[in-house]
Formats: sequence, C-alpha cells, structure tokens
Amino acid sequence: MDKAQSALETANTPAVLIDLEIVRRNIERFQAYADKHGLKVRPHIKTHKLPQLAEMQLSAGAIGITCQKVSEAEAMVAGSPDIRDVLITYNILGEEKRDALAALARKVALSVVADNETVLDGLSSTFASEPAPLTVLVECNTGADRCGVSSPQEAAALARRIADAPGLVFGGLMTYPPAGGALAVQTFMTHAKSLIEAAGIAVPVITSGGTPSMMAAAEAPVSTEYRPGTYIYNDRSLVSRGVCSWDDCALTVLATVVSVPSRNRAIIDAGSKTLTSDLLGLSGYGHVLGRDDITIDQLSEEHGRLVSDGAINLKVGDRLRIVPNHACVVTNMVDAVHIVEHGAISAVWPVAARGRII
Amino acid sequence: MDKAQSALETANTPAVLIDLEIVRRNIERFQAYADKHGLKVRPHIKTHKLPQLAEMQLSAGAIGITCQKVSEAEAMVAGSPDIRDVLITYNILGEEKRDALAALARKVALSVVADNETVLDGLSSTFASEPAPLTVLVECNTGADRCGVSSPQEAAALARRIADAPGLVFGGLMTYPPAGGALAVQTFMTHAKSLIEAAGIAVPVITSGGTPSMMAAAEAPVSTEYRPGTYIYNDRSLVSRGVCSWDDCALTVLATVVSVPSRNRAIIDAGSKTLTSDLLGLSGYGHVLGRDDITIDQLSEEHGRLVSDGAINLKVGDRLRIVPNHACVVTNMVDAVHIVEHGAISAVWPVAARGRII
Repeated sequence: MDKAQSALETANTPAVLIDLEIVRRNIERFQAYADKHGLKVRPHIKTHKLPQLAEMQLSAGAIGITCQKVSEAEAMVAGSPDIRDVLITYNILGEEKRDALAALARKVALSVVADNETVLDGLSSTFASEPAPLTVLVECNTGADRCGVSSPQEAAALARRIADAPGLVFGGLMTYPPAGGALAVQTFMTHAKSLIEAAGIAVPVITSGGTPSMMAAAEAPVSTEYRPGTYIYNDRSLVSRGVCSWDDCALTVLATVVSVPSRNRAIIDAGSKTLTSDLLGLSGYGHVLGRDDITIDQLSEEHGRLVSDGAINLKVGDRLRIVPNHACVVTNMVDAVHIVEHGAISAVWPVAARGRII
Repeated sequence: MDKAQSALETANTPAVLIDLEIVRRNIERFQAYADKHGLKVRPHIKTHKLPQLAEMQLSAGAIGITCQKVSEAEAMVAGSPDIRDVLITYNILGEEKRDALAALARKVALSVVADNETVLDGLSSTFASEPAPLTVLVECNTGADRCGVSSPQEAAALARRIADAPGLVFGGLMTYPPAGGALAVQTFMTHAKSLIEAAGIAVPVITSGGTPSMMAAAEAPVSTEYRPGTYIYNDRSLVSRGVCSWDDCALTVLATVVSVPSRNRAIIDAGSKTLTSDLLGLSGYGHVLGRDDITIDQLSEEHGRLVSDGAINLKVGDRLRIVPNHACVVTNMVDAVHIVEHGAISAVWPVAARGRII
C-alpha cells in the first residue's frame, strides 16, 4: 500500500472526501463553456460552502458568488477577502435579516432577488437610509414552480416598483429553471426584458442556473450569467442523468463496514446523518464505487444497509467510497471535509457556511 | 398579541422550537409505564442531543443514557456531570475510536455492543491494558435486519467469547426490534438467555428499544431495560402511527412564508436543510399545525413548497409551525434550538451532540 492509499485507509470514518483535482477540472470545464458563449459565471456556493473553493472558482474566471441565505453570505465573505460580489437568490424578510444584509452591503457588492411587494417594501425601508442603494433582481418562474413571478408582465411591474423604490436599484431578472428549461427561459426573459426596456428601465443582468442543463445554457442567449452549483462536485443524480461520469465526482463519503450479519447484507457506519435521505428520484442512497452490484437500500441515522443480489463479499473493517445521491446536502452534514490531492488527504477544511439557514 | 405569542412572532426563522412542558409530559408518561412494569429506562439521546434534556430524563428516573456514536457520548458526558452511565449501541472499530472509548470509560460507567468477533478483538486489544474492563453486550437481530447476530446460538457463542476476552466483561443482550416486535424479542432473548446461562454466564441486562412500540414493551417481559428516543419529542411519523397526537409533539419548526406565487401555492424559508428529506413512509415533508389542507409537497435546500387543493390563504410574512416527519434528524440540522415555556421562548440551547458522526 503506498502512502496516499494509506491516508485514506486510516482516516476516521465516516468522512467526506473532496478530490481537488476533480474539483479543478469541473470548474474549468464549465468556465471554458461559459467563456466560449460569452456567459458570466456566478457559482452557487451551496454545494461546497467553502471560501477556499469559491476562491478557486473566482480565479478561474467567475465574476462573483451566489448564496441562498444571508448567513451563508456572511460566512463566505468573512472567509475570503477575494469574495467581493455576492448575489443572494432569496426573498429576504424581517428586520434582523435586513440589518445583516445592510452590514454586508457595506463590505461587498451585494444584490438580492424579490418576487413580491412585501419583500421589496421591507428592503426599501432598510436601504433608504443606507449610504448606497441595494441592487434587486426580479425572480421569475420559468417552470420550476417554486418562487418567482409567473408572467413577464408581473416581472415588468415589479421592475418598475424597484426602480421607483427609495434605497433600491433594479438589477435585472433571475430564474431557477427546471432541467431542460432553456427555451422557457429564453421566451420568458426576452418578453420581460422588452417590456421593462419599453418602460425606460435597463436590464443589466439576466441570470439563470442549474447544473443539469448547464451545458445547454447558451440555448437561452438572452441570459448574461449562469449560476451552477453542484457542477463543482457532481453526484449520483447527475451521473444518472448522463451529465457526468463517476470519475467526475469530486465528493465521496468514506465509510467502514461495521457488520456483515448475513451473506448478502453489510452495514456501514454512514447513515442519513452523513449521506442524507435525499433521493432526487433515484432508488437507493448512493453508489458504492467499484461495486455496481450493491444497493444502499436503507439508512437509519448512523447505519447504512448494503444489499447485493449475490454474496456481498465484504468483511468487517473494509472501507468503501460512496458517491451520494446529492452532494450539496452532504456538505451540510459535516463540520469539516477532508481534502484529497494525488490520492492522499492533504488538509481538513471546516465547512465555513454549514448549517447557515438564517 | 400577548408577550408569549410575540416572542414566537419575532424569532429569526427558520427556527427549531422545543416546548418544555410537552417534553416533561412525554418523559413522565413513559417513565411511569416503565416503573409500573419494572423496566429500567435508558433513553437514546439521538433525538435531542442535549445534556439538559438528558438531565431531565435522569431526574425522572432513567438509569443512564444511550448514544449511537463515541463522539456523541463524549459531547453528552462533557455537557453534564449527571451523566454517569452510558451505553453506546454500536459496533466500534478502529484505534482512534477505541482510544476515545477508553478515555470515556475512565470517566463514566460505559458499555458498548458488538455483533462480530472483529469488533470484539479490537475492543479486547485496547481494554486489556486499561484499569477496568469494558462491558460489552451482544447485539441481536430480532427482525429489523440491520446489525445483530441472527440466532440465539450465535449470541451465546459471542457471549462466551466476550466472557473469555481479556479486558472485556459480558454485559447482556441488546436489540433494536422492528415496530411491533415484542413477541420476537421475547422469543429470541429467552432462548439466548437460557443458552448463555447454561454455559455458566450471567445475563444481567436485556435491552430493547424503539418509540413506536414502547407502550407494549412489557409484552417482552424478558427485557430488563428499554431505550426509547423519539418519545421525548414525538413527530409526524408517530402521529401517523397513532402513537401520539399533535399536542404531544414537542419539536416544531417555525417558518416564514416568503412567497405566494399562485393561488394554491406558498413557499416557506425552511427546506431540506431544516426539515430534512426523511419520509419514513409518509407522503409530504411535515404537517403544518392548524392547516390540515396543506401538503408540503417539495423541498429544496432552503425552500419548502406548500400546496393546497383550494386557496392557500397565506400571505408573505405569515409564520407557520410545522411538525416534521422525523424529529431526530431535524435536531441534527441546527446549531441551537429555541426552548419554549408557557408559550414564550425562554432560552436558546446549543445542540451539544449535533453532527457527532464519528
């Protein structure tokens, strides 16, 4: 056993491993695509929650980062002087959050989104007395049916309200489209943009996102910016969609077999507290690298149950690497991740923005 | 609005609330049942992960606590001088974990479980040179098909191996049965006990667990001890099994409506990073108190989507309290919980054993 392999053999399990070579390759692949098509890249940090990886994304060419919650943005900004431009793609409500937002806006270029007047009125009441206005984009529903105004007309009405609100400046349009939604994005955004421009308001940014469809981002040329998240790590859900291969998966969970109670069953020390219960439409809770015959058919909090149609051929103490269904949620389960370079663990990084739900 | 209500109206969301009156009632209810039937109670702390609540369980009559991982036990013991007796119901492997176990055993009465020889041999190698032997119980599979030896004969063989191993002492038998498994527990354990006693080895403890069947624990009178976990909080899965009512649910997630994009849809600021994706066989991701018509049909990390057959009748800024499908996993998502007494938030407690997966 060489030294590199040995480090993976002795790490205390369960452990989340991040292969930095694969991370670098994943970042560069999408940046090259975006550069070719004149798209700006603003990666969503929800996947890694690490200032160190945001720095890698920025130095590869990203123009800034995307966060989902105010407290996530706070952790990222505190973690790296290179993070100077942050978009929070969330409707922010409540005085405590708005005050945190104002403090952040004094440090970095900050923008947020809104899809309703209540959120806008709150933001305006806080930022009217701030030294600089807050940039607000209108969130648009292009088919994912989560947040977002449902028509270009509503987008235009909200854009005007932002332009007229004290303390706010209209920043453009934002959407989180369904997978394969490039055409829907193009149609909605083109219409909304023309309505807003007809009202004499410029639309500087049109930002879309989502890893599954990122290599088709250019099919919505009205977009100026793209916000992929999971692409930096990839995961079983993306392999199953044909977006990448196992070799492109930078995040794996290292687990130890703690019991082999029957011929076709083994139990590992990683359960839902590490792999999470996210299925994303799949069956089973992750892919055991090198063992296509195994299904992780059941998780409790600290146990993962592995079954095989034939003999499981594992013994107590064996170590396995698992590609989880969904990388982003796994990152949120651990206080630190183990960085792997050239096959060996080179560092342990605290997950700076873990658990930042506020 | 009275003062109590007002505290719930201003807490920054999403927030996990713990109603201490309900907690007290839930603890007392099972302790009274166990006392009546001569069963000792050793609650599993995985549900709350709070030394303060372990203290309440101990002062109500519990003889000690159960933990699932070594690092969980470390956090609990460090958090309260009242915690003097800990059972870790897990196969513990690896020198680093065994050294931590040895350090813990010098502080409190400690016992662990094993279902295989590899684990036993490791424990023996560490504890042979410790000042006192480690108590080890044999984990038995009574139908849940997770860990555990599969027959009373195997249990007896492992008991003898423990009794013979340097540094170890045989502590009894442990199982985590399937729901409704009292008869299976009684049958397996009676047989295993008689085999072990026939070999001249005493069986001081037979410990079973699981909240769903806890009020039938006495139907396995061979048991000496019971380890309920979720009973302290309860959750939607237990309400759906008829084990308790919504009024018995001590843990709720306080969330704010951030968007009402259509007549029958609303979005809250709690997603899978708070409610988790655990379904436990249910459909939907939690129950909105007072709104039986609403289904939480989709979670992304920071968004929960609420739908209703009719009008959703919510507005942006409204606050909702949600009973999650599974309380234990929600506790693991947050750094702190808000303690509610007499309807008001009386304290914020850090979740001492959160994320302790090692």
